[in-house]
Amino acid sequence: MDVGFIGLGHMGAPIARNLLKAGHHLIVYNRTRSKVEPLAREGAQIADLVADACRGEILITMLADDPAVEDVVFGDRGALSALRRDAIHISMSTISVGLSDHLTEAHGKAGQGYIAAPVFGRPEAAAAAKLFIIAAGADLMLSRCHQLFDEIGQETFVISNRPSEANLVKLSGNFLIAAVLESLGEAFALVRKSGIDPHRYLNILTGTLFSAPVYRTYGPIIADAQQPTDGFKMSLGLKDMRLALAAADALAVPMPVASLVRDHFIEGVAQGESDADWSGLARLAARRAGL
Amino acid sequence: MDVGFIGLGHMGAPIARNLLKAGHHLIVYNRTRSKVEPLAREGAQIADLVADACRGEILITMLADDPAVEDVVFGDRGALSALRRDAIHISMSTISVGLSDHLTEAHGKAGQGYIAAPVFGRPEAAAAAKLFIIAAGADLMLSRCHQLFDEIGQETFVISNRPSEANLVKLSGNFLIAAVLESLGEAFALVRKSGIDPHRYLNILTGTLFSAPVYRTYGPIIADAQQPTDGFKMSLGLKDMRLALAAADALAVPMPVASLVRDHFIEGVAQGESDADWSGLARLAARRAGL
Amino acid sequence: MDVGFIGLGHMGAPIARNLLKAGHHLIVYNRTRSKVEPLAREGAQIADLVADACRGEILITMLADDPAVEDVVFGDRGALSALRRDAIHISMSTISVGLSDHLTEAHGKAGQGYIAAPVFGRPEAAAAAKLFIIAAGADLMLSRCHQLFDEIGQETFVISNRPSEANLVKLSGNFLIAAVLESLGEAFALVRKSGIDPHRYLNILTGTLFSAPVYRTYGPIIADAQQPTDGFKMSLGLKDMRLALAAADALAVPMPVASLVRDHFIEGVAQGESDADWSGLARLAARRAGL
Amino acid sequence: MDVGFIGLGHMGAPIARNLLKAGHHLIVYNRTRSKVEPLAREGAQIADLVADACRGEILITMLADDPAVEDVVFGDRGALSALRRDAIHISMSTISVGLSDHLTEAHGKAGQGYIAAPVFGRPEAAAAAKLFIIAAGADLMLSRCHQLFDEIGQETFVISNRPSEANLVKLSGNFLIAAVLESLGEAFALVRKSGIDPHRYLNILTGTLFSAPVYRTYGPIIADAQQPTDGFKMSLGLKDMRLALAAADALAVPMPVASLVRDHFIEGVAQGESDADWSGLARLAARRAGL
Repeated sequence: MDVGFIGLGHMGAPIARNLLKAGHHLIVYNRTRSKVEPLAREGAQIADLVADACRGEILITMLADDPAVEDVVFGDRGALSALRRDAIHISMSTISVGLSDHLTEAHGKAGQGYIAAPVFGRPEAAAAAKLFIIAAGADLMLSRCHQLFDEIGQETFVISNRPSEANLVKLSGNFLIAAVLESLGEAFALVRKSGIDPHRYLNILTGTLFSAPVYRTYGPIIADAQQPTDGFKMSLGLKDMRLALAAADALAVPMPVASLVRDHFIEGVAQGESDADWSGLARLAARRAGL
Repeated sequence: MDVGFIGLGHMGAPIARNLLKAGHHLIVYNRTRSKVEPLAREGAQIADLVADACRGEILITMLADDPAVEDVVFGDRGALSALRRDAIHISMSTISVGLSDHLTEAHGKAGQGYIAAPVFGRPEAAAAAKLFIIAAGADLMLSRCHQLFDEIGQETFVISNRPSEANLVKLSGNFLIAAVLESLGEAFALVRKSGIDPHRYLNILTGTLFSAPVYRTYGPIIADAQQPTDGFKMSLGLKDMRLALAAADALAVPMPVASLVRDHFIEGVAQGESDADWSGLARLAARRAGL
Repeated sequence: MDVGFIGLGHMGAPIARNLLKAGHHLIVYNRTRSKVEPLAREGAQIADLVADACRGEILITMLADDPAVEDVVFGDRGALSALRRDAIHISMSTISVGLSDHLTEAHGKAGQGYIAAPVFGRPEAAAAAKLFIIAAGADLMLSRCHQLFDEIGQETFVISNRPSEANLVKLSGNFLIAAVLESLGEAFALVRKSGIDPHRYLNILTGTLFSAPVYRTYGPIIADAQQPTDGFKMSLGLKDMRLALAAADALAVPMPVASLVRDHFIEGVAQGESDADWSGLARLAARRAGL
Repeated sequence: MDVGFIGLGHMGAPIARNLLKAGHHLIVYNRTRSKVEPLAREGAQIADLVADACRGEILITMLADDPAVEDVVFGDRGALSALRRDAIHISMSTISVGLSDHLTEAHGKAGQGYIAAPVFGRPEAAAAAKLFIIAAGADLMLSRCHQLFDEIGQETFVISNRPSEANLVKLSGNFLIAAVLESLGEAFALVRKSGIDPHRYLNILTGTLFSAPVYRTYGPIIADAQQPTDGFKMSLGLKDMRLALAAADALAVPMPVASLVRDHFIEGVAQGESDADWSGLARLAARRAGL
């Protein structure tokens, strides 16, 4: 297929690469142009403008936040005006429920399709085509995208025909991860201050009730007090808690743990750790305990 | 071996049964006598007094809380006076770090051994000899107990030679479970109020990053808003948060999620749900959201 | 002076009435027209359109929230286009820091003045011209408004020449009131459940360290479990916590008590109490305690 | 009257001095003997043992915490055995509800009176005989103490005939003060980071809704980021939140703001600020915001 791809960051680049490998014709656009060059060497065509990436049947966007998506879609010569009727915009970014509803309506009016397809998985998973894809949108649109999803992920979960529900699931999933990071942080601070070996402790957790990827991935980072450099940033964790809480506020759902985690991300940002991996929540918990 | 066993509740009874099956001579004591009768029919000897269960090489206690253990050990004609020198008291109850330190000292002075060996696992796991055992104590004592542990559990994790560290690990583990219950409760309230099918949502969680027993066990209970009758009670969840926070206070470790969960257990108790399963945290979260 | 006045709710109507009494020529506009009629009988002129209220030297707006202000100012034939150069818009609404900054810029570009002047005080205080006015804006503009402020309030506090700082002070003040409501709610639940007479307790508080209007006003409401019908609504309390937290997020300031209070307002709204007085926070605290 | 006085710290010494001035015969005891010497020079008799201070009609204790009181009362040759029948023990310390109930029972069995009479006020207020006294106990006992209370305080509030209710009121009052310190800390962090002058801000608070001693006393300390050296210590604030939460737990009352404040006191202690004034809560809030 002819696929436009906008947003070649930590996650976008490996996803785009897998689509290239699968044989699609890819036109890629990134605001910082240097990021598209490696892909160009592997066969992608470079778009000079957003609109140039919107000529095909499919447009995939994988961008940092709501403003970036708004800019690409609603901006002057943006995707909304450039996409043809019947083209599908697959938005893989973690954006707000409100913006996703807005995109559904705007693309619908323009006769275009819109699928929300945020993903779970870190850059390594993206590179290995092992992402989990959370998809929502009209059935007909989804059926046109399934092949693509299979090429970049290990499994696709379809939520419903309302795109923003995929975004809500993604945001709530990031909340659950952050809740794990926070509570592990507190538990490790306790255990460490008591003099118990943190690796022995982690081994118990992952060997018993907590044998899931989220504990296996972040447990060793926290036990070693590592600071991964290629992870998911605190500032993005904060953004996602903000969006989860905004969605919860709109539905009148109190989420006290989400509020607490949000406050701790703000604390991290206030102390200059915006760019640190979001597992830094555990480092903050340790610091509060005087460790 | 000659094994005394005190405390034949939901957890104690199946553990004792497995020791009987393994061929040990068991003398069992329970304050409410009716609970020992089924075991007597399977071959256990009934003790009329605590002291009568303290004649053998090993005494196992599996009791509800600190006062129950204090009563059995320090009470008139209690275990401390009744156990012979070199006997070992294996305390499987989830008790405070402080009491465990106190027991270490008291048994030590009396020339007796003391092992803390709290467990992870619900009554079904106890019945299937699939418990996880968290053990701490002097090496020599532990080596005398390993065979017993293998007969009742699937794996034994040794922490250190300070018994109370096993209790701290157990308490922190219960905190981590409660934190999962609370955050799942908030996430399901959000997702449900948005109109997303809760089973589809759960399927995503356990199919991706959250594929651990704690999510697999409690997820369906929460998705179905079940109220299991044989579970771990809110009042016991509250007790354990109290003990975890007391240990954290003694070590000067702030644990805000533990504080929040404790407040929610108190709310449950205040609303007459002391005896409900501790996954009731999720029901409280739903109720707060007006569900 | 020729004064336009938009927004004749619980607070706006008595303020406008005091300006009429002071001898100003008032042109009043309200979306729900019935609310302007009592004022018309007292001498105010009725504006059919927003623009008709923007002909004078001064425009005062006292509206419910950001969208209402945006609509009046930026809407088609709104204040921004209708006000003459050198006219001053005095915004008394409790709005966001972001919108206030936006208004500063927009009015400035149009050669118009902009003053933020939110107030502390309930409708009775507005009627008695006893409001406290928190004002910020350019000195020259402020000096043109001082006379008006004296006619409606008991004291005017000037913050700085940046209008949005008055809004931040107002939001932080509402946060402090809500924090008092929440903590009084918790304290009264405790004291009441212990069997202590709540009025005797309140008498101690207001007779010792807590002898301030905020305790004297809300204490009796909470001690009697009253539900005032003309108060400040939970839904508005929620809105203000949302705005305070948004301002705090923008400045990277964690405010955990504000987060907690916000969650409790959401709980109130979820349980159908949007329109209840915000002292309902205390009723929620009592309910959580099973009272 | 013949009055024994045990505990001559920051609060006890000025109270004892006022009783001396009022003409009572005072026998004083303090564990650290050097603290009684200034009082001896002013006419007090020094007791070498606790029992020596228990010969009179009245015993007043003003001690740091539960263990100190338990030691003095229940210790070998302690007050319980040394006081004569009909003597009254006035406990002014801020102790737990549980211990106060225990003292009521123990003194009652010994035919002695027991009054709980904790106070509000800092050392300056104690020196000026301006304390607020919160008293509870049997009417007959209270009537025998009123004269004494008038000599050391500006007002006595009688709660009920159950002594521990005075302790609960005192603990809940300290909770309300700590809640003010915490919320002021958050508000000042916000305002300060926005660039608003903190004194101008404080002036608004105390000039409007927050014109109470608690804001007037602590507001300037927080606005100036002072660190008073003779204040009420963080470690004592933590102790009181612990006791308030224990009382609330026993009555099944969730107090989330108290939990939050407790966590912040623990954070202060973990960071070496045990001995800092409890207004240090505001400094922690500022630090979290990167100030």
